Amino acid sequence: LEDILITGGQKDADNLFTFSRNCYALVIGILGTGDFSRSLARRLVACGCRVVVGSRTPSRFVALFPEEAEVTHMEAANQADLVFVAVYPEHYSTLVHLKPALAGKALVDVSNGLQIKQEGPSNAQQLADLFPESSVVKGFNTTSAWTLQAGPRDGSRQVLLCSDDQMAKSSVMQLCRRMGFIPVDMGLLSSSLEIENLPLYLFPSWRTPIICTLALFIFFYLYNSVHEVLHPYITGGKNKLYKLPIEIVNVTFPSVALVMLALVYLPGVIAAFLQLWRGTKYTRFPDWLDHWLTRRKQFGLCSFLCAALHAVYSLCLPMRKSARFQLLNKAFEQVKAGNADSWVEADVWRMELYLSVGIMALGLLSLLAVTSLPSVANTVNWREFTFIQSTLGYCALFMGTLHTLIFGWDRAFLAAQYHFGLPPTFLLVLILPLTVLLSRLKCRYLIMHQIM
Amino acid sequence: LEDILITGGQKDADNLFTFSRNCYALVIGILGTGDFSRSLARRLVACGCRVVVGSRTPSRFVALFPEEAEVTHMEAANQADLVFVAVYPEHYSTLVHLKPALAGKALVDVSNGLQIKQEGPSNAQQLADLFPESSVVKGFNTTSAWTLQAGPRDGSRQVLLCSDDQMAKSSVMQLCRRMGFIPVDMGLLSSSLEIENLPLYLFPSWRTPIICTLALFIFFYLYNSVHEVLHPYITGGKNKLYKLPIEIVNVTFPSVALVMLALVYLPGVIAAFLQLWRGTKYTRFPDWLDHWLTRRKQFGLCSFLCAALHAVYSLCLPMRKSARFQLLNKAFEQVKAGNADSWVEADVWRMELYLSVGIMALGLLSLLAVTSLPSVANTVNWREFTFIQSTLGYCALFMGTLHTLIFGWDRAFLAAQYHFGLPPTFLLVLILPLTVLLSRLKCRYLIMHQIM
Amino acid sequence: LEDILITGGQKDADNLFTFSRNCYALVIGILGTGDFSRSLARRLVACGCRVVVGSRTPSRFVALFPEEAEVTHMEAANQADLVFVAVYPEHYSTLVHLKPALAGKALVDVSNGLQIKQEGPSNAQQLADLFPESSVVKGFNTTSAWTLQAGPRDGSRQVLLCSDDQMAKSSVMQLCRRMGFIPVDMGLLSSSLEIENLPLYLFPSWRTPIICTLALFIFFYLYNSVHEVLHPYITGGKNKLYKLPIEIVNVTFPSVALVMLALVYLPGVIAAFLQLWRGTKYTRFPDWLDHWLTRRKQFGLCSFLCAALHAVYSLCLPMRKSARFQLLNKAFEQVKAGNADSWVEADVWRMELYLSVGIMALGLLSLLAVTSLPSVANTVNWREFTFIQSTLGYCALFMGTLHTLIFGWDRAFLAAQYHFGLPPTFLLVLILPLTVLLSRLKCRYLIMHQIM
Repeated sequence: LEDILITGGQKDADNLFTFSRNCYALVIGILGTGDFSRSLARRLVACGCRVVVGSRTPSRFVALFPEEAEVTHMEAANQADLVFVAVYPEHYSTLVHLKPALAGKALVDVSNGLQIKQEGPSNAQQLADLFPESSVVKGFNTTSAWTLQAGPRDGSRQVLLCSDDQMAKSSVMQLCRRMGFIPVDMGLLSSSLEIENLPLYLFPSWRTPIICTLALFIFFYLYNSVHEVLHPYITGGKNKLYKLPIEIVNVTFPSVALVMLALVYLPGVIAAFLQLWRGTKYTRFPDWLDHWLTRRKQFGLCSFLCAALHAVYSLCLPMRKSARFQLLNKAFEQVKAGNADSWVEADVWRMELYLSVGIMALGLLSLLAVTSLPSVANTVNWREFTFIQSTLGYCALFMGTLHTLIFGWDRAFLAAQYHFGLPPTFLLVLILPLTVLLSRLKCRYLIMHQIM
Repeated sequence: LEDILITGGQKDADNLFTFSRNCYALVIGILGTGDFSRSLARRLVACGCRVVVGSRTPSRFVALFPEEAEVTHMEAANQADLVFVAVYPEHYSTLVHLKPALAGKALVDVSNGLQIKQEGPSNAQQLADLFPESSVVKGFNTTSAWTLQAGPRDGSRQVLLCSDDQMAKSSVMQLCRRMGFIPVDMGLLSSSLEIENLPLYLFPSWRTPIICTLALFIFFYLYNSVHEVLHPYITGGKNKLYKLPIEIVNVTFPSVALVMLALVYLPGVIAAFLQLWRGTKYTRFPDWLDHWLTRRKQFGLCSFLCAALHAVYSLCLPMRKSARFQLLNKAFEQVKAGNADSWVEADVWRMELYLSVGIMALGLLSLLAVTSLPSVANTVNWREFTFIQSTLGYCALFMGTLHTLIFGWDRAFLAAQYHFGLPPTFLLVLILPLTVLLSRLKCRYLIMHQIM
Repeated sequence: LEDILITGGQKDADNLFTFSRNCYALVIGILGTGDFSRSLARRLVACGCRVVVGSRTPSRFVALFPEEAEVTHMEAANQADLVFVAVYPEHYSTLVHLKPALAGKALVDVSNGLQIKQEGPSNAQQLADLFPESSVVKGFNTTSAWTLQAGPRDGSRQVLLCSDDQMAKSSVMQLCRRMGFIPVDMGLLSSSLEIENLPLYLFPSWRTPIICTLALFIFFYLYNSVHEVLHPYITGGKNKLYKLPIEIVNVTFPSVALVMLALVYLPGVIAAFLQLWRGTKYTRFPDWLDHWLTRRKQFGLCSFLCAALHAVYSLCLPMRKSARFQLLNKAFEQVKAGNADSWVEADVWRMELYLSVGIMALGLLSLLAVTSLPSVANTVNWREFTFIQSTLGYCALFMGTLHTLIFGWDRAFLAAQYHFGLPPTFLLVLILPLTVLLSRLKCRYLIMHQIM
């Protein structure tokens, strides 16, 4: 490998070939004896590579490396053509005595950070500073010991690589492919900070959508509690606290679901109006809109989760003791009143209609959710994706709105629904979806008008 | 790159190496400044490539390309070694003045068609006709600007490529891999028409199954409406219209689900009989059978969707006002009749049995549906796939049939079920599944007999 | 290709290039005319390769190979540079007359075994013994004819390869990539036995979890039957057999689900205690623990399946005739007793609480199940994976335990629940989850104590 790093026309060509052909004959060194080191060694041996593992105390862990030689750090550095550095970054300085042995060789920094760093130097850059005569390649830190050990059979795992030395990076990419991974070139070593941060993120794209969902949930939960628990207590002294765990939750979830679904389509409408107003699509959107547009999938999935929970809660309603007791008391009343038929046609129709519209909305949302699974999304083309996420998505929003409208029906005009002067929940909930649906129609009209 | 295109033994080898090593030093040109162009430029810069973007009016969009030089078309064509053509196909003719500058270079046509074309020439072929001295490679049209920008981290995206010039194609494939995509060689430039059509299809494999589902749904919905709404109105003047949104739909969905599931296994049975009858498995099946066989997964998923909706509708039944009113009236009747115990053992057993068989059928269908997700299907081997789709699939068909049989039980022999002389729905529904199950047994018997 | 196999410095380099450049000009031979052969030929032709198919009786199947020449075995062997052997292993000996024609060429063995073999020689090794002058590469046996024909567009399919000849393996890997597959190097030909066994396994990782689930199901089903069917019959002569299909099953599933969920987290707790007790994390775990740790995902999915079925069964309860009859009889009783209000606050609260905790537990388990889909698991980093599987998983276990505790509430202390002296089911079920939760807390405490 040393020769490869010497620049030059024909000589390089020969050596790269030699590398390609002799990749198996190549000796791969690994400094460090942790979990990652062991898994990496096993994987490399399985690919037919010769591996030497450098240890501070070679005798101690001999049992762990049955198939590959375990030697001292210095021996490993001397024998290897390409060296993986699998020791903790804080111990890098203990390797400085290997500098002459590692000169001219490719060093792969597989380390991870302990916390997200906004500013460098990254671990890989620190290693490069310590070994200026070696070529440091950052990579494999996003790969777990488990994936290495099991082999990449269960799904294609990508390995992000970067380095200032293109030849060293090429060698590592080639090794990567042999191991069954898919190397992705991330450019120069300055990208290593980003690569080191990647495994430390905790659902960054979910933060805003989850905060939104929680905020809406708390708001609507309190609003509904005032309506359905506090109001009957204050005005009639009735104890309706039993409604808190299920009934109030079941009115809150659909509210959150519908508002979140409207929030999925709102940024698209805003963007369209912005483009129409500016008269061009070649200007950047403001950052907050850009951010919102890229989070639509997460907003949609949060909406689906709330809708699904609403469905489960609703289906649980007739199973509860409270529903049973109410029904029995109602039967008692009916018998006492001598009322042979309690059928109310309007109530029956309202319920049949809003249930069936609700099921359709949930069915459409389920389709959207399944299609947002990465493996399904990968099999549809752009036109199909747009059809599902836009056409079917607007259908779901329309169905959800209709579900709420049928539920509200004549109740919106009953003064009895305005407890403490507060409008009933469904009125609040309908504002945003109706705005989005009407704006969308307006926007369509404007675009058609413009074209004509 | 020009040199690469010169044929010749050793010279080529050297140059390809030079290309490989200097890929980062290579200047990539992009003609056009749209969304795709911007995303492609960013991705290439992230991979360490030098990028020049050719624009008709370089000054105007300067803000959009902060990291890469934006120049005139001519400058881009002159500086670049490999050129992406990212302008609309109808503007290709405006590029003819670049012909000398582009001679001997690889041109990548990333354009999409506006509608599916059955006959050529494709956009790429038109470009090749305009620039006979350049090597046109078709590709990247199936890749969205979004995927380019986000990087291919979220799932491995394949890039379909074709070209008449193998060296140019090889270079683009190599660039592709560096960007983290998986190039797939689709052969000569004559494949470009197919590649351009790919993003325009709208679920071609779902057309037949969805049409089947809709046709069956409409048929059974009307048939059930006659039975359950029209018949009581005509014979007894009873208004049962409230059954239309939920109850009729809930009888229709399971019918469609079971017939569709039978249609999944029917073509396999037909094919087996055809092979037994012809005495060989080395003849092609008729086209309609071949088409049907390749659509079985979609038929199965439609069946699952109907079965799942049937489950949701059924679970909603006790929640409805209509069910509540009927129960209250029934309680009233029972009290008036002085009947202390209304328990009917046979009715109880029938319901417990057909519910539990129904749940099992749905459970099996859910397993089949989960296993047909691409990422899950990729992790099972052939034997496991056959076990699930064939063995478990037939179990689901058997359970579904049994569910319907238990529901029908003695009702098939009651004259009261034959409204207007029409047999009850479940009798119609059972024909196809029973045929498939019995044919399968017969077929098994024949094969075993043949072997012995 | 012959030349490539000659070892030597510069000469090789040139030839490999020649190969690379002329890959399309390369003639690929396929011996055999079965389904696999046809699909492979079509795929290779689509990639621009020249293909000759060797047949015992070339005239017979001529219609099946419209695009590629079909010739005799000998002609194919002579013309081809790289040969796929697609005949049944038991017919390998009929190919020995091709030995001179195949000498120095790469032979790809695509055969599968008929049953799992623990000991060699594998088919590929037998082929290598028959053709010592050719270079045998094992591969493509895990790829179905269907995948070959449809192209690898629908998800990245890996092709496992092994060979003792690195150059031959490299050529096949390159061909593999051109076809859009991802070659994975599995090392020397001695790995071929494992590769041949791969398609024959039938869910090996699911065996233990499924046996566990079934054993627990049978145990709890019998235990509950004694409690709820046998006991009322023996003590009161009441026939409660109707409970067998649904009610008993619905008490059994949650028991199995909770115990299985505890079994997911038990091995982790045992491993942690073992490491604390040994004072080091650098010793191997006993085999049974290692085996158990790698099966946690499957245990978890079995638990989720049982929990989901429990939910469906529970939701079906109010829909049953038996529930209806009991309710009607209850209404009759209430009217006869003149009891206007049957509301029992404690019963209402217990049910509302344990339903809502149960829904939360199921929601968390659903999240865990979705995240264990390969395509979703691939998109989360290690920290996110740990958060979901460990933090959310323990929450689900806690919620499930709480659900059972609230259900049990005061019933654990009622002598009437101890039929035949046997404790009620929920007491048995709680043992393991409570043990795991408390051990986990203890373990956390020990680790924190150690650090301080």
